[in-house]
Amino acid sequence: MLFHVRMDVQLPPAMPAAQADELKKNERELAQSLQRSGKWRHLWRIAGQYANVSMFDVDSVEELHALLMSLPLFPYMKIEVMPMCRHPSSIHESDA
Amino acid sequence: MLFHVRMDVQLPPAMPAAQADELKKNERELAQSLQRSGKWRHLWRIAGQYANVSMFDVDSVEELHALLMSLPLFPYMKIEVMPMCRHPSSIHESDA
Amino acid sequence: MLFHVRMDVQLPPAMPAAQADELKKNERELAQSLQRSGKWRHLWRIAGQYANVSMFDVDSVEELHALLMSLPLFPYMKIEVMPMCRHPSSIHESDA
Amino acid sequence: MLFHVRMDVQLPPAMPAAQADELKKNERELAQSLQRSGKWRHLWRIAGQYANVSMFDVDSVEELHALLMSLPLFPYMKIEVMPMCRHPSSIHESDA
Amino acid sequence: MLFHVRMDVQLPPAMPAAQADELKKNERELAQSLQRSGKWRHLWRIAGQYANVSMFDVDSVEELHALLMSLPLFPYMKIEVMPMCRHPSSIHESDA
Amino acid sequence: MLFHVRMDVQLPPAMPAAQADELKKNERELAQSLQRSGKWRHLWRIAGQYANVSMFDVDSVEELHALLMSLPLFPYMKIEVMPMCRHPSSIHESDA
Amino acid sequence: MLFHVRMDVQLPPAMPAAQADELKKNERELAQSLQRSGKWRHLWRIAGQYANVSMFDVDSVEELHALLMSLPLFPYMKIEVMPMCRHPSSIHESDA
Amino acid sequence: MLFHVRMDVQLPPAMPAAQADELKKNERELAQSLQRSGKWRHLWRIAGQYANVSMFDVDSVEELHALLMSLPLFPYMKIEVMPMCRHPSSIHESDA
Amino acid sequence: MLFHVRMDVQLPPAMPAAQADELKKNERELAQSLQRSGKWRHLWRIAGQYANVSMFDVDSVEELHALLMSLPLFPYMKIEVMPMCRHPSSIHESDA
Amino acid sequence: MLFHVRMDVQLPPAMPAAQADELKKNERELAQSLQRSGKWRHLWRIAGQYANVSMFDVDSVEELHALLMSLPLFPYMKIEVMPMCRHPSSIHESDA
Repeated sequence: MLFHVRMDVQLPPAMPAAQADELKKNERELAQSLQRSGKWRHLWRIAGQYANVSMFDVDSVEELHALLMSLPLFPYMKIEVMPMCRHPSSIHESDA
Repeated sequence: MLFHVRMDVQLPPAMPAAQADELKKNERELAQSLQRSGKWRHLWRIAGQYANVSMFDVDSVEELHALLMSLPLFPYMKIEVMPMCRHPSSIHESDA
Repeated sequence: MLFHVRMDVQLPPAMPAAQADELKKNERELAQSLQRSGKWRHLWRIAGQYANVSMFDVDSVEELHALLMSLPLFPYMKIEVMPMCRHPSSIHESDA
Repeated sequence: MLFHVRMDVQLPPAMPAAQADELKKNERELAQSLQRSGKWRHLWRIAGQYANVSMFDVDSVEELHALLMSLPLFPYMKIEVMPMCRHPSSIHESDA
Repeated sequence: MLFHVRMDVQLPPAMPAAQADELKKNERELAQSLQRSGKWRHLWRIAGQYANVSMFDVDSVEELHALLMSLPLFPYMKIEVMPMCRHPSSIHESDA
Repeated sequence: MLFHVRMDVQLPPAMPAAQADELKKNERELAQSLQRSGKWRHLWRIAGQYANVSMFDVDSVEELHALLMSLPLFPYMKIEVMPMCRHPSSIHESDA
Repeated sequence: MLFHVRMDVQLPPAMPAAQADELKKNERELAQSLQRSGKWRHLWRIAGQYANVSMFDVDSVEELHALLMSLPLFPYMKIEVMPMCRHPSSIHESDA
Repeated sequence: MLFHVRMDVQLPPAMPAAQADELKKNERELAQSLQRSGKWRHLWRIAGQYANVSMFDVDSVEELHALLMSLPLFPYMKIEVMPMCRHPSSIHESDA
Repeated sequence: MLFHVRMDVQLPPAMPAAQADELKKNERELAQSLQRSGKWRHLWRIAGQYANVSMFDVDSVEELHALLMSLPLFPYMKIEVMPMCRHPSSIHESDA
Repeated sequence: MLFHVRMDVQLPPAMPAAQADELKKNERELAQSLQRSGKWRHLWRIAGQYANVSMFDVDSVEELHALLMSLPLFPYMKIEVMPMCRHPSSIHESDA
């Protein structure tokens, strides 16, 4: 089941660099393990923004929510979720 | 080069069904040929909306613009374009 | 799987009354059969608006999309969909 | 009498964890007792957000306001309230 | 029970004057009878706009909704409803 | 002369309780004296919000501005002002 | 008493030129007579828009409303009204 | 050359009173000297807001920008600028 | 003097093709003559939109307004104008 | 390849002047070197705002993103990016 998720990150400017780097490192590790598991199917950077668009492939809405809440950067993110489905004109099996 | 494109279609309710069907058929054919060519890399339907999110992989902004303007439904669509790039945490070669 | 759906209906003022009544009758019949099936779990009217908030309990996003597109009033509705999940503080089994 | 209430929680990132946990514990206890009393009829989590949609069944607007103001998280919440009524197409007695 | 209701009227410019006048006459008569009944407690014109702010004093949300839907201008109005309650600093018994 | 004023209060969460209580006490006293004087004609609480809708009856725009600026909570309020006039369908002499 | 009024005009593209010209002629005549009377104190064109910003000097909100409603273009205008008063730093007597 | 400028001032609540007063004093002095010079042609207070609408009469956009940036309150202001020109229906020479 | 102008064109879908083509031809001719004159300094197409961003170099706001109003597509355009000036970090003489 | 980029800078008022000046100096140096390289083709100041509109000429979206992220003021900027292409009516070779 596919969800389009936009994440806009806003770290407080006053946050110490070390703390920010630690958060980003953990975020990166978790994101990559979720990609390897297939849950986090696509991850793109929006040019010019500290933001990404991702496609998640999960088994339930609960699973999606748990994954997003588990992200180290979650408290600093504005998140928009859109449920997606296969487009009638799509020829990509992988887009289901 | 990747562009995230959201298309919201709004056909005038008074449009004759035959005309609408013809437009949609032509739109479908062009969309599928562009997908086969690799230009239109992803195409998903936003649940509950007559709208889609797509990822285009083109060689230039001009090419993107020409493709979008050539869509039969273009005059009836609100289109938002975001340039995307590979995310530093992405493990998907195919997301470049 | 739960989805919160807001539907704002906007029929063209110039639409003949008979056509509007027919649409509403069909909408009502479909809505009630979907409620009986359990798919359409909750349906409330927003006071003062020709709009409703509904909760759908479906097996997939595709199913949700198909149901919404099948509504006779679909062409005349602005629809917003939010995926919902059980709240950690909820005591209602039926809210899962 | 039914009210649809959306609550978006925004705790200051700098708030000490212990204080936040205490607030959440108290919020949870109050929310569950209000659910048991029937006042708080539905409570769902919006996927990907620290936010919920709830349905309150109260005897007056004053009662609704008092309940919401009494929530420990109230000072940190953006709240939107919509009065709801039974939908003419609803078959659910429990949605009145 | 008090509800703050804002009504913005937008009659199609192409509507024949006679039809518009008939609508306004009926609207006026119903509004005045509802005021006499006490349901429609306050009615003010927003300067420069074909819009009003009203305060309704009704027994239920259903009653409010039925009243608003019964207004001849309802199909041509954008309506916003806010539930209100007595302010702790109010000295006006009549504002309850 | 009537003005519809909406006031949304946003006290900084970090403000000491004593300071906040003092502000609210002073605000309450001034609001009640202005109501007794007839300047502050109506004052209602928006359910679920730390906000109110008020109707002021003043002799000039300057007087309205001075009253609002004199409110202890003014620095912490988002204020929207709409000039109102008697509605042609109003039967309430007191709504002039 | 001063009111800042922004008027955005939107004539239906399908309106016959003669009808539009007649409306504009009448609008112009009324606007100029109101300026001569001192009611319409300032009138500026917003560059690039079929819109203006005006300052009205009237004796009451009712008078303002009546003037605006009497404008031939009123049915085709979006109007925003802001009550203004003398600025404490203003040295212009004429800005009172 | 005329520019309509709206300035909304938002001083941080935590700013010491003395610092705020100093800023306001300097702002007032500069504003009055600019008014005497004719650059700052009109200055009105928006009722109920810590905001003003002004009309500047300058020789270039650069001059406008320099004036606005020189205002002591500039760092604490949200500014909107609209270029204005003489309205074809204006009879006021002074509005050119 | 530089003005940044965004123009979003929205031709009524029902407009006959011949009329639309005629409008576009005239628009094109005027746009090119204004570019040759130096008034219309830059003209870019926003990818995916029937919209452009332009930079105008004119002698007065009146001139800008007259140019924009003279465009054949003016009645079908939403226009936003921003006055621009030389950036302190700019090294381009031609950007003045 | 052209990108229209709007940058709105918002430095925290509490930032020490020296730190702010250092940031601005570094920003200025990088901006000027990028202009000399041709990447940063146009840079204009929006009058009355601490904001600019720029046109970037880059070889890829990745390059654009890297340039923007490298700007010292990046953490304090709200950035909007629009892909642009040559306008069919443009006569400026240099606008390609």
